[in-house]
Amino acid sequence: MSESIGRLDNVVHQRVRLGILTVLSEAERADFAFLRDTLRLTDGNLSSNLQVLEQAGYVRIEKTFEGRRPRTWVRSTAAGRKALEEEVAVLEAIVARVNGSRESSAGA
Amino acid sequence: MSESIGRLDNVVHQRVRLGILTVLSEAERADFAFLRDTLRLTDGNLSSNLQVLEQAGYVRIEKTFEGRRPRTWVRSTAAGRKALEEEVAVLEAIVARVNGSRESSAGA
Repeated sequence: MSESIGRLDNVVHQRVRLGILTVLSEAERADFAFLRDTLRLTDGNLSSNLQVLEQAGYVRIEKTFEGRRPRTWVRSTAAGRKALEEEVAVLEAIVARVNGSRESSAGA
Repeated sequence: MSESIGRLDNVVHQRVRLGILTVLSEAERADFAFLRDTLRLTDGNLSSNLQVLEQAGYVRIEKTFEGRRPRTWVRSTAAGRKALEEEVAVLEAIVARVNGSRESSAGA
């Protein structure tokens, strides 16, 4: 347990950032509005969490223009995908542990 | 996804508190020193996170004496076990989603 919990990285484990990386695991890139709407966040909340992920090297942010409209694209980096995989491995261990103890107490 | 992430309760999702509730899912009660050592926390960090869980009604804390030695016991409440079950259901959905997209991109 100490190992599992110790391996949880707050940069990735935090609720909103875990959501962002999960969405990005399914697409090559996603735009700001799509992430905001899918995860039901405010602009400010999404922005500040993207900044944390960018500073950790887990996402790359590109600002483009479509005509005159600015559009912000976000994609996972290799480090971001690796961090998400490690997080998911820890979550799987926690899930197995909680489910295991539930079954054994139900069986007792 | 919005649903999953929206259902994550920060009281339970936070790394240390998720660890505490996971350990408590496996035992009727645990003492302070056991939780601290198992989760490799400082006294202060464990105390403040126990307070958050207690205020949410997720754990019950009993201070006892064994001879002259004080001993602090912690146990999950029914609400705490329910909150952990809900957290685990969301974690399972996230794990399935990330693993699903990894498999489909490996297959592409």
